[in-house]
Amino acid sequence: MDLTTIKDPKFIKQYDLEQLEVLAEEIRTFLVEKLSVTGGHLGPNLGVVELTLALHKEFDSPKDKIIWDVGHQAYVHKILTGRANRFDELRQYKGLCGFPKRTESEHDVWETGHSSTSLSAAMGMAVARDLKTADENIIAVIGDGALTGGMALEALNHIGHEQKDLIVVLNDNEMSIAPNVGALHNVLGRMRTAGKYQKAKDELEQLLKKIPAFGGKIAATAERLKDSLKYLLVSGMFFEEMGFTYLGPVDGHNLDDLLENMKYAKKCEGPVLIHVITKKGKGYAPAENDALGTWHGLGPYKMESGEVVKKPGPPSYSAVFANTLAKTAKDNEKVVAITAAMPGGTKLDLFAKEFPNRMFDVGIAEQHATTMAGGLATQGFKPVFAVYSTFLQRSYDQVVHDICRQNLNVFFAIDRAGLVGADGETHQGVFDISYLRHIPNMTILSAKDENELQHMVYTAVQYNDGPIAVRYPRGNGVGIKMDDELKQIPIGQWEVLKEGSDLAILTFGTTVPLAEEAANHLAKEGISVKVINARSIKPLDEEMLHDLANKNYPILTIEEAALQGGFGSAVLEYYNNEEYYNVVVERMGIPDQFIEHGSVSQLMEEIGLSCNDVINTIKKIIPRKQQRA
Amino acid sequence: MDLTTIKDPKFIKQYDLEQLEVLAEEIRTFLVEKLSVTGGHLGPNLGVVELTLALHKEFDSPKDKIIWDVGHQAYVHKILTGRANRFDELRQYKGLCGFPKRTESEHDVWETGHSSTSLSAAMGMAVARDLKTADENIIAVIGDGALTGGMALEALNHIGHEQKDLIVVLNDNEMSIAPNVGALHNVLGRMRTAGKYQKAKDELEQLLKKIPAFGGKIAATAERLKDSLKYLLVSGMFFEEMGFTYLGPVDGHNLDDLLENMKYAKKCEGPVLIHVITKKGKGYAPAENDALGTWHGLGPYKMESGEVVKKPGPPSYSAVFANTLAKTAKDNEKVVAITAAMPGGTKLDLFAKEFPNRMFDVGIAEQHATTMAGGLATQGFKPVFAVYSTFLQRSYDQVVHDICRQNLNVFFAIDRAGLVGADGETHQGVFDISYLRHIPNMTILSAKDENELQHMVYTAVQYNDGPIAVRYPRGNGVGIKMDDELKQIPIGQWEVLKEGSDLAILTFGTTVPLAEEAANHLAKEGISVKVINARSIKPLDEEMLHDLANKNYPILTIEEAALQGGFGSAVLEYYNNEEYYNVVVERMGIPDQFIEHGSVSQLMEEIGLSCNDVINTIKKIIPRKQQRA
Repeated sequence: MDLTTIKDPKFIKQYDLEQLEVLAEEIRTFLVEKLSVTGGHLGPNLGVVELTLALHKEFDSPKDKIIWDVGHQAYVHKILTGRANRFDELRQYKGLCGFPKRTESEHDVWETGHSSTSLSAAMGMAVARDLKTADENIIAVIGDGALTGGMALEALNHIGHEQKDLIVVLNDNEMSIAPNVGALHNVLGRMRTAGKYQKAKDELEQLLKKIPAFGGKIAATAERLKDSLKYLLVSGMFFEEMGFTYLGPVDGHNLDDLLENMKYAKKCEGPVLIHVITKKGKGYAPAENDALGTWHGLGPYKMESGEVVKKPGPPSYSAVFANTLAKTAKDNEKVVAITAAMPGGTKLDLFAKEFPNRMFDVGIAEQHATTMAGGLATQGFKPVFAVYSTFLQRSYDQVVHDICRQNLNVFFAIDRAGLVGADGETHQGVFDISYLRHIPNMTILSAKDENELQHMVYTAVQYNDGPIAVRYPRGNGVGIKMDDELKQIPIGQWEVLKEGSDLAILTFGTTVPLAEEAANHLAKEGISVKVINARSIKPLDEEMLHDLANKNYPILTIEEAALQGGFGSAVLEYYNNEEYYNVVVERMGIPDQFIEHGSVSQLMEEIGLSCNDVINTIKKIIPRKQQRA
Repeated sequence: MDLTTIKDPKFIKQYDLEQLEVLAEEIRTFLVEKLSVTGGHLGPNLGVVELTLALHKEFDSPKDKIIWDVGHQAYVHKILTGRANRFDELRQYKGLCGFPKRTESEHDVWETGHSSTSLSAAMGMAVARDLKTADENIIAVIGDGALTGGMALEALNHIGHEQKDLIVVLNDNEMSIAPNVGALHNVLGRMRTAGKYQKAKDELEQLLKKIPAFGGKIAATAERLKDSLKYLLVSGMFFEEMGFTYLGPVDGHNLDDLLENMKYAKKCEGPVLIHVITKKGKGYAPAENDALGTWHGLGPYKMESGEVVKKPGPPSYSAVFANTLAKTAKDNEKVVAITAAMPGGTKLDLFAKEFPNRMFDVGIAEQHATTMAGGLATQGFKPVFAVYSTFLQRSYDQVVHDICRQNLNVFFAIDRAGLVGADGETHQGVFDISYLRHIPNMTILSAKDENELQHMVYTAVQYNDGPIAVRYPRGNGVGIKMDDELKQIPIGQWEVLKEGSDLAILTFGTTVPLAEEAANHLAKEGISVKVINARSIKPLDEEMLHDLANKNYPILTIEEAALQGGFGSAVLEYYNNEEYYNVVVERMGIPDQFIEHGSVSQLMEEIGLSCNDVINTIKKIIPRKQQRA
C-alpha cells in the first residue's frame, strides 16, 4: 500500500496476520529508502516494526497511551499515525521531528529524547486515569539500555509498590547504542535463553507434586518454592521481585506471539512487563550485521550496498578529544576515562583500545558516572567523564554536591556543547554554561577549534585545583593544522585574535569564526573590530576586561548558548561595579526558548546569530558608544 | 571512659566483646546527653552504635575507607575518630559539622548530605585501589531508604557488573525519614523475616537430594534450583541477582554477629552486601518509640522525659503551604501532591490526611517524582511536587527536558529555599534561582511571608500556562496575620512596600524584612529608600523596572541566593539595553562559594548580608548616582 495514504492507525484493526506481515515489509522498504536520503535512526526502527504494528492493532491509540522511551524508535508509529508523507523532511528544519512530538499528532502523548523517562510518565498517566476512574491502557516501551538509567529504576520501584495497571514493554535488543553494561544486562541475558528452561521447569513441577512433604507440613514452603521455580526458570525473577507480572520472552518479530502476550497483559491486574526480544536493523542486512553500532543513527547511505556516505573532512572534535586524552594517559597513569553508554559517540572507544583497564562504560547512568569520578579523584586519580552537554544535565546535583563542593579534580569533557542540529530540542547543548557557571569551584573552558581542544584537554589533565570542564561542539573540526607539541592554555586568560579599535567582540567556541568573518567584513567598511577568544568562561580574564573598559571599548559578547545566566551575563556581572559604569555591553546568544531541529546554520539564522546579525548589531552599538562618550 | 580522650579508633582493636558493649552504652549516654542541648540526628546515630564499633574494630580506617551515605549517622564515627570534645558545638557556626567532612578528619574520606551517593563513591575508590594494586577495603554504609534513589541503583548495577571487591552495609532500619515506599521495601521486608525460612530451606535441600531425577538428566536444573532456594529462602535474591554476595540478615545490635559477618565479607571475592537490621533510636525509649519520625533529626529536648523543647511561634512555611494546598484541593479535584520521601518535612502528611488518594510518596526519587508529575499534567491534572530547594537539584534535567520543554502545568513547591542553617553546605538552598531561571517556560515566585505564601500557593494552583515554582524558606513564618480569602498574585508584577525617592531596593522572600529595616534606619538619617517586593523572579516586572529607570532610581538588588546567574543578574540582563545604559545597579547576595553550617543570621553576617551591610551599601551607591547624573 501507499503508506502516505494512512491517516489513522485504526485500519490495521481489520488486518489479519498475513496482511500485517505484508505491511511490515512495506514499512521496512519505506524506511530503508527514505532514510538513505535523510539519515536517521534506522536500526532501532527496523527493530520495532512488528512491535509497533502489534501495539496499534491491540491497543486504541490515542485513548490508550503509548509512550516511547528515548523516542528515536517512533518512526513506525509516526507512519501508522499519518505522517509517512513527511519523511522526506525527517529531522530537517521545520520538518518531521526525529522524536515523538505532541504538536505533531494526538498519538504522541509524551515527548522524549533523553532516556529512561517513560516509566515515570506512564506512572503519572496511570495515576491520572485511576483518579478519573477511566479505563485506558498505559503502555511504556523501553529498551534494555534505558532501563539502567536511575530514574527508570526509581519508577520501576514505585510502580511495583503501587501496583497500578500499566504495561511495560521491555524492548530487549541486546545492544542499546553500545553493548550494554551492568548487572541488569546479565539478568536480561539469562532471560533471553529462558526458553530452554521451560521443559525442565515442567518436569520439576511434576516431580515436586509427587513429594509427600509438599502436601504436608511445609505446604506453604512448597507454594513459595513453586513461585521460586517460576522466577528461576522463566528468569523473570528480577521483575517479579519488583512486583510486576512478567511475560516472555517473546519473539519481537513474531506478530502472533506479540499480539497474544499483549492481549494477556491487558487482562492482568497490576503492572505487567512484556519482555520482547528484537533485532536492531531487522530485515536490512547492513543494519542487521552492525557490529559497530553505525546503523543506530546515521546520515545518508547507499540503499543497495549499505555503504555509508562519508563526507571527507577534518577529524571530529570527539576524536581529537579522545586521541589527545590517550596521548596524555601514556605519561600519566592516573588518567581514567568514563562514559555513560556513549563509547562511540564520545570516541572513548579509541581511548579504550589503548587503555582497556582505564575506561569505564557505566551504562546510561550519568549520576553514577559523575560521583564515581569523584571517588576516583579522592584517591589521587584524574577521572575524565566525557558526556554530551545535554546529558550532563542529568547529574547537575552530583556536579554541585559531590564534585564542586568537595573541590575534586574531575575533568568534564563536555561534548556536543552548543546547537546539535537534527536531534533538536531535547539534545541542544545550550544550557551548560548557565547551569555550571554559578557552581563554586568550577572552571569552564571552551574550544574554538580542534587544535585549541587538544591543548585544553592537555591543560585539563594537568589541572589540579578542582573540577574543570572543557566544552567542544558536535561534528568535525574546522580543519586547522594541529600543533605537534601539547601546551597548557592559561586558565583565566583570553587570546586576542585580531586587533581593532572601534569595538571588541568577546566570544568562544563555534562563534569565533563568525566573529572573525564579521570583523573582516566590517574592516572593508572602515570599522575596526577587535576579536577576542574568551576561551576561559570561568574564571573570566578580569585583567583583559579591565583593560578593555579602560580603553573605552564598546563590547559585544557572542555565544552559542543560552543568554540567561550565560557568558554575557558573567561579563555584565563583572562590569556591575562602579568603576565600570560607563562600559557598553551588548550580548548575542540563544534567547529564552527551546530550539527545534534543523541544520545548525539554519538555526543560527533563525535565532539571530548569523554573520549579518553580528554586523548589524555592531553597526548599532558603535554610534551609541560615541553618543555616550 | 571519657570519650573526649579518644584520639584514634585503634584502641578498640584490643577491646573484647564485653568492653565494646560497655563502650556502646557510654556512647549512647553521651549522644542522648549532648544532643539534648544541641539537637541533631539522634535516632539514626543511636541505631548505628554497634555497627560503627564493629566497622572500626574489624577494619583499619583510614586505610580502609568507610563511606557514610547521607552522613547524618556519622556521629558515632566522629566520636571514635577523636571528635567527642566538639559535640557541644555540633552543627553550630564554626563547630562540628553534622555530616562527614574531609577537613575535620582523615577518617572522613567522602562527604555526604544528599542521599544515595555512597555506592558510586565507593566504586570510584575501588577502581582506584585496583589500578594502584593496593588492598584496602572499601565499605559503603547505606540505608534502605537511600537505596531507592536512582543513582544508588545505577551504582549497584555497575558494581554487580564489574565485580569489584567492595562491601555494602545495608543499614535496614525499616524506616528512613518516613516509612519507606517502593517495591524494594517489600523485598527488604521479606528479608527481614528470612530467619524462619532457614529450617524449611534445610529440609527442602535434604528432600531434593533424595529425588533420583536430580542425580540424573536434570542435574543442571537441580543446581539451579539449589541456587534458587538460596535466593528464595534467604531472600537475598534481589542482590544476588545483581551480582552481590548476600550476607544476612544480621542483628545490627549484636556485635558478635556483626563482627563475624564483616570478617567473612572481607574474605569474599567481588562485591558483598551485608544486610544489617537496626533500630532507629535504639536504647533511648522516646526515640525508639518514635512513630512520627520526630527523633530522626530534631532540636533540643529534655533528656529525662524525652519532651521536645518547642519554641512557640507562627506556623512553619511548610505547614502553611500544605494546609493551603489542601484548601485548594477541596474545590479542585485535579490537585495531586507528590513528595520524595519527605511527607513530614514538607508537611504533605497534613495534605495526605485529607486526601490520602491524592498524595504520593515516591521514595528518595526526585527524578521520578518530577517526571511522574509531568505525566499527570499531560492528563489535565495539577501535580504539586513539594521538594527542598537543594534536593530539586537532583531533577534538574527532568525539569528542563520533561516539564519545561513540554510546558506542562507542574507546580514545584520549593521548600527550604535560601540558607537552611545547621545542615550546612550540602543543604543550603541557594542555587535554585540560578539553575531554574534560564530554563524556558519556567515561572518563579518567592514568598516574603506566610500570608503571601498562601496566596502564591493558590495562584500556582490556578496557573495553567506551564510550570511554576514557588519558593519559601525553612522555618516558621514571620507571624503576620493571614488573610481569610485566598487571592491571586499577579505573575510578573511586583509590590511597592515602602515609597522612597533616593534609591529603590528590589528584593524578595526572607530579605524583605532586612530591606525594610535598613530603609527605616536610613529614613532617620534623611535617606529615602523605596522598598519593592520583587516576588516574581521570572518573569520580572518589566513595567516597574522601566519606570524605575525612567525616574532615575539607583537600584539595589538583595537576594538570599547565589549572585552568579541569580535575580540581580536577571535585572542586569534586563537593563542591558541601550535605553537603560545609565541605570545604576548594585547587587547583594551570596558570593561564589559554598556556605557552611551556622545559624542563618550568623551566616548572613558572614557573607555580608546584614542590615548594616545593606545600609553601608546604600550609602555608597547614592553619591555615586549623584556623581553620574
